[in-house]
Amino acid sequence: MSKQEILLVKPKKFFIKDAFKLESGEELDGFEIIYETYGELNSDKSNAILICHALSGNHHAAGYYSEDDKKPGWWDELIGPGKAFDTNKYFIVSLNNLGGCHGSTGPGSINKKTKKEFASEFPIITVSDWVKSQNLLREFLEIDKWLSVAGGSLGGMQALQWSIDFPDKLSKAIIIAAAPKLSTQNIAFNEVARQSIISDPDFEKGDAHPKKGLGLARMLGHITYLSEESMKHKFGRELKKEKIEYGYDVEFEIESYLRYQASNFAESFNAHTYLLMTKALDYFDPAKKNDGDLAKTLSDSICQFLVISFKSDWRFAPEKSKEIVDALIEAEKSVSYLNIDSIQGHDSFLLQNARYENAIINFLKANV
Amino acid sequence: MSKQEILLVKPKKFFIKDAFKLESGEELDGFEIIYETYGELNSDKSNAILICHALSGNHHAAGYYSEDDKKPGWWDELIGPGKAFDTNKYFIVSLNNLGGCHGSTGPGSINKKTKKEFASEFPIITVSDWVKSQNLLREFLEIDKWLSVAGGSLGGMQALQWSIDFPDKLSKAIIIAAAPKLSTQNIAFNEVARQSIISDPDFEKGDAHPKKGLGLARMLGHITYLSEESMKHKFGRELKKEKIEYGYDVEFEIESYLRYQASNFAESFNAHTYLLMTKALDYFDPAKKNDGDLAKTLSDSICQFLVISFKSDWRFAPEKSKEIVDALIEAEKSVSYLNIDSIQGHDSFLLQNARYENAIINFLKANV
Repeated sequence: MSKQEILLVKPKKFFIKDAFKLESGEELDGFEIIYETYGELNSDKSNAILICHALSGNHHAAGYYSEDDKKPGWWDELIGPGKAFDTNKYFIVSLNNLGGCHGSTGPGSINKKTKKEFASEFPIITVSDWVKSQNLLREFLEIDKWLSVAGGSLGGMQALQWSIDFPDKLSKAIIIAAAPKLSTQNIAFNEVARQSIISDPDFEKGDAHPKKGLGLARMLGHITYLSEESMKHKFGRELKKEKIEYGYDVEFEIESYLRYQASNFAESFNAHTYLLMTKALDYFDPAKKNDGDLAKTLSDSICQFLVISFKSDWRFAPEKSKEIVDALIEAEKSVSYLNIDSIQGHDSFLLQNARYENAIINFLKANV
Repeated sequence: MSKQEILLVKPKKFFIKDAFKLESGEELDGFEIIYETYGELNSDKSNAILICHALSGNHHAAGYYSEDDKKPGWWDELIGPGKAFDTNKYFIVSLNNLGGCHGSTGPGSINKKTKKEFASEFPIITVSDWVKSQNLLREFLEIDKWLSVAGGSLGGMQALQWSIDFPDKLSKAIIIAAAPKLSTQNIAFNEVARQSIISDPDFEKGDAHPKKGLGLARMLGHITYLSEESMKHKFGRELKKEKIEYGYDVEFEIESYLRYQASNFAESFNAHTYLLMTKALDYFDPAKKNDGDLAKTLSDSICQFLVISFKSDWRFAPEKSKEIVDALIEAEKSVSYLNIDSIQGHDSFLLQNARYENAIINFLKANV
């Protein structure tokens, strides 16, 4: 892509001054949200798409901040001119969720009451809380109805929650590599990640970037994002050095890769945010209010649904997407489902894949 | 089972005074091995079976130490009078591997040179080293040839290595829930476990039982021992308390279970041993010397093989056992293979299951 064609973007902020009641019963004394937009809102405001991010994501979903910027946004493979989420056609809105650590109000923000960072005092946030705050962003942008709300993983859960909490405010929900609720195993992995962070003495001392604990959580998360096959393909049992040295230094390439990922992440991500995000995942279970009946929970939804899973995804396996699809069918909703061949595991949702992209293109194009 | 029928056992020790050369090139200045035996050695010494333990196992595979003892040995479901490894018929030998922390020479032993505990100075031990030390135990017991060498997981790898390193010293190898080498994902999980331990400040300070780091490693290991289905079956999304409290205390049953497992294990297991065991797993790759050709590596083996896997095992999935079976077939060896229905994941190898037990019974009974 030539320099002329790159998407140059600039984040914006919006503020809510009123008290914001959370699902937990706690309250935030106002908040701010950082967001980016890509493309132009059309005259009848019918082309707006909200992108929801996953555990470690943020508002910078696409484009570059400058021509010298080395890395684009996290979903740049799918968002941009001529891409699946085509910025020549659509007005894309991407925000950093409440509780995040990239500019929206979160544990790193100053608590007006104490004049100190919230840190561990930041209240627990749920997927419903996010959707409620995203709906305030929708009102602020004066968009009556999203053409679509879309996301992968925890982002897909937000898209599903939108269809439940604000059924008349979106025309199309795109739910990718998600689940209607976490499995016991998912919760177990999250608990290990949390314990890694909480038990790091640096974190106990108040460091929001505990290198070791947050690094461990990231290493573990990373293993669950990749498929066994893609790990084998990328790293195999390749040694970092010429031969085995029988010791605890890095020996296999995979060890080196994980340590690098861990250390990078721990520098930049807020540990409190990581804890919050894993809890939002654990708590997510919209059918709970109807004793597990997801079809009943979705009965008021009126949007069209596109559900996508990836065959090698074992974090949120295709069976989990199928549970959503089955509930939508039982509730007699309009739903398309694709289970896509891909060896990249959960991370597949971030990557280009012709069938995946075409499904999104056609779903967005179809008449409502 | 009535008190009269329980198997009462008492560990024994054997000593090697000579220098013991390790695969790494390092040397141990003699060692001791703690072991137990169950049943009676017959007159022609043809009924001896060696049991090899897995990562966190030890020599206490079966029976009780006293009538008041609450828990039997780790493989008591399969070893005992009338059980799969029938102590009325066979003489079973079970040892704590070199590097262990239950009585054999390991990181907790005194290094004669420094008069201090070996701790992190204990040399790296490989599966071949274990087999070599187990062969000295065989000589000490004056057993010319094992009727069988058997083990699950890392124990199965030792059985496989026996058939390669001492082909004429065993008649039957029983390789359960094992793999010919670790996958990239397996190594990745081990690396997270190691980093959990190594980065615990208590461990850095010299504590061989760092509660947090070793606990984290155990929690993570535990997730990989259970299948997603068995976790769901055992714990589901059950809450520990009456309702969600939106915080970081234990909320789900699975969290409570993992924390309990972690804390128990961290009290009793030596962190250096845990590190050693994960490295032995990572390094295990007997076909490496033949550029990955396992059939060639097995060409001198003359024992009969029984290979068993469990359908819900994702730590060492059935595909890994099949790789061993395929190599044995290619090498024109005698091999029986069973892939057993069980929802218990990797832990299935520890539990009773009629088809599993019958396979062992019949394999041990068959004429050599």
